Amino acid sequence: MMTIFLKTLAATLPASIVRQKLSYTPGALKIDGKTFELSAERGIHLFGSGKAAVETARAVAQILGQNLRHGCIVSNYPASVEGVEVLESSHPVLTEKSIAAAETLIEKLSRLSEDDFFIYVLSGGSSALIEKPIPPVTLSDMQILTKGLLANGVPIDEINIVRKHLSLVKGGRLGRLTKASGIVLVISDVIGDDLEAIGSAPMFFDRSTFYDAKLVMKKYGLWENAPDTIKKLFEDGVSGRFEDTPKTINDKIEHFIIDSNVKALQRAKGYAEELGISAYIMTSRLRGEAREAAKVIIALGEEIAARREPFPTPVILLFGGETTVTLHGDGKGGRNQEMALAVLNEIKESPRFVFFSAGTDGIDGNSDAAGAIVDCESWKTALKLNLKIDDYLSRNDSYDFFAQTGDLIMTGPTGTNVMDIAALFVG
Amino acid sequence: MMTIFLKTLAATLPASIVRQKLSYTPGALKIDGKTFELSAERGIHLFGSGKAAVETARAVAQILGQNLRHGCIVSNYPASVEGVEVLESSHPVLTEKSIAAAETLIEKLSRLSEDDFFIYVLSGGSSALIEKPIPPVTLSDMQILTKGLLANGVPIDEINIVRKHLSLVKGGRLGRLTKASGIVLVISDVIGDDLEAIGSAPMFFDRSTFYDAKLVMKKYGLWENAPDTIKKLFEDGVSGRFEDTPKTINDKIEHFIIDSNVKALQRAKGYAEELGISAYIMTSRLRGEAREAAKVIIALGEEIAARREPFPTPVILLFGGETTVTLHGDGKGGRNQEMALAVLNEIKESPRFVFFSAGTDGIDGNSDAAGAIVDCESWKTALKLNLKIDDYLSRNDSYDFFAQTGDLIMTGPTGTNVMDIAALFVG
Repeated sequence: MMTIFLKTLAATLPASIVRQKLSYTPGALKIDGKTFELSAERGIHLFGSGKAAVETARAVAQILGQNLRHGCIVSNYPASVEGVEVLESSHPVLTEKSIAAAETLIEKLSRLSEDDFFIYVLSGGSSALIEKPIPPVTLSDMQILTKGLLANGVPIDEINIVRKHLSLVKGGRLGRLTKASGIVLVISDVIGDDLEAIGSAPMFFDRSTFYDAKLVMKKYGLWENAPDTIKKLFEDGVSGRFEDTPKTINDKIEHFIIDSNVKALQRAKGYAEELGISAYIMTSRLRGEAREAAKVIIALGEEIAARREPFPTPVILLFGGETTVTLHGDGKGGRNQEMALAVLNEIKESPRFVFFSAGTDGIDGNSDAAGAIVDCESWKTALKLNLKIDDYLSRNDSYDFFAQTGDLIMTGPTGTNVMDIAALFVG
Repeated sequence: MMTIFLKTLAATLPASIVRQKLSYTPGALKIDGKTFELSAERGIHLFGSGKAAVETARAVAQILGQNLRHGCIVSNYPASVEGVEVLESSHPVLTEKSIAAAETLIEKLSRLSEDDFFIYVLSGGSSALIEKPIPPVTLSDMQILTKGLLANGVPIDEINIVRKHLSLVKGGRLGRLTKASGIVLVISDVIGDDLEAIGSAPMFFDRSTFYDAKLVMKKYGLWENAPDTIKKLFEDGVSGRFEDTPKTINDKIEHFIIDSNVKALQRAKGYAEELGISAYIMTSRLRGEAREAAKVIIALGEEIAARREPFPTPVILLFGGETTVTLHGDGKGGRNQEMALAVLNEIKESPRFVFFSAGTDGIDGNSDAAGAIVDCESWKTALKLNLKIDDYLSRNDSYDFFAQTGDLIMTGPTGTNVMDIAALFVG
């Protein structure tokens, strides 16, 4: 099982993904079987934003070699990439850095001519890393509104409708500022891989309208006290005095989802089958409280173990997505380790199961582990050390539990993120 | 979907189950393909305890007709069954009634000769309905200990180890008090259908020991302050001065699980397939917080809807078991309605899903509904009526929500219980 995870993770690194998908020979860029004929002399511009920008850009730059004309990406951490300017911006909270970074990208993209070609590497986190409010809306107006949206428990998809209508870069607006052609290489950290959602879609388009955005604010009672600049903008938008977000795709810019949770699960399935074990992708949309999701996952496994239904043994059930953790204590851990601990609490001494859950970004919660892997040996070790699972769960202290049983999965940050993957082996 | 549920429920009624499994011709009793040759003159004795005792006994009595020599069952509600004495006892809390009922059964079973034959109908709830502490342990001693066990969060399987070692009827002891032969018709309301667990196994045997029982009490710090009668009994048990629970089955008494959650799910699967829809039993061991289990179930359904993995559409996923509800408010509802409401919160206006969850006993939580059934029409109705799912969930008020949308499943009490069944249709 550990092998399956590590192979999957290795294949999920941007270096692997990009090398597998993208190739360049002077005058021709190939991606996913599609060829773009390019002028060999003009070279290719490289842009990007998101938590995977650095590693993806690095891999792209290596493939382009001398043909990389110029590069500029926005990252959440400092890094250097040969031939590429790396702007460090802020995440997850928007700051002036986000605005400066957006302004740089806007300027560079606007300056390109229609004969230019660019590659934009897009990944999760981009929404906070680059932002530029539509004047005269200010950063502070945005912050006031965001606070209100969050305080009123507005669902994330409705928050995004509002945000996209305040921004010069989101909802496809950035893609309209350039005359150049290009491709967007997308690493999805979003359930369902919706291109309108990933990184707030700077280069795509947006089906929601100013009218929808105003409706969300009214629905949650936020309209009356909203900053005047925002009310004026939305009213101008509704009446057509200010243009809405693009409703169609810019046909000079093509998007390619180069990696996603489903693709990672498909790779895991492949590696399981190489080992001669049938594997099924149960979902790439896992969500809910980690310790409760664990109980349902093990309930599926127990049925297979007891009655070989709906699959015969041995089998691996694959789950992807992102669960959540409601904090009860101040322990160390994350949703993956907590789910593994809750699974261990159910499988106990049964030798029929092995389970792991880990973040593909290599970081789980407030710990330096990616996740954990458990089986009956973990249970026996915990018994020997007199570790009580319920105690560790009640403190959200899964990391300290697994540090003692030796079941942490430590990979270090991977520089990418396609959410979490989990697998239950039933033998 | 409603048809599938109602057909399944109809087939789950003890009258259906018993009629299908049991037949009698003078001199021969047939159950599950096995024949017991009996003296036609002596007739058959009928005993029983549990929440399904009345309906099961009624069905058995009808099949036996004139050959029912005598009957006595213990129920949690008043009822009359022709030819059978019905003792009303207390549930879920043990009282003097439980002791009186146990004494009656002990006396009647002890009086049978080795030429007699009995049928014992056993179902969930039996643990509280019949009880007789081993003298000199008193009911009050038991109550003190039980309070301590519950207050210390002792898991139910460990509570049962302790309880079985205080009892003259549990853990197989009742079955040792009779010289007669017999069969036990079991309706399981226990995950995994463990005969050592169902109704505390009055006629089966028990692998746990006085030593284990003492260990549980020590583990949870309950030994020191336990009533002296109990400490003395356990020490006598550990040292062999008092005989432990039977460690082998009484070979004159055979158990037949005539119904269970898995059997109900198998029937549901059959009815789905009659309608031309593939169905899979995903688990009969569902557990965890209802609203969180809902999210995992719908995550499975969405993957099928989006990618036809691991099953092609249309398909029905079947789930059985018992979830739990953590109370946040004082609303009306139960785990089934709450799970249906949480599922509705995820499927919203999607026309690809229909979901139901209902208790096979016909009673869900503190309501008179068995459960609820939801699809996009429920969502639309809720929108029209301006019902906010989050509000109803936060008050645990799923019943009042579905009373307004018209999605309650009302069956009335069924007189049996094989836990809950839930199904997700993905089209």
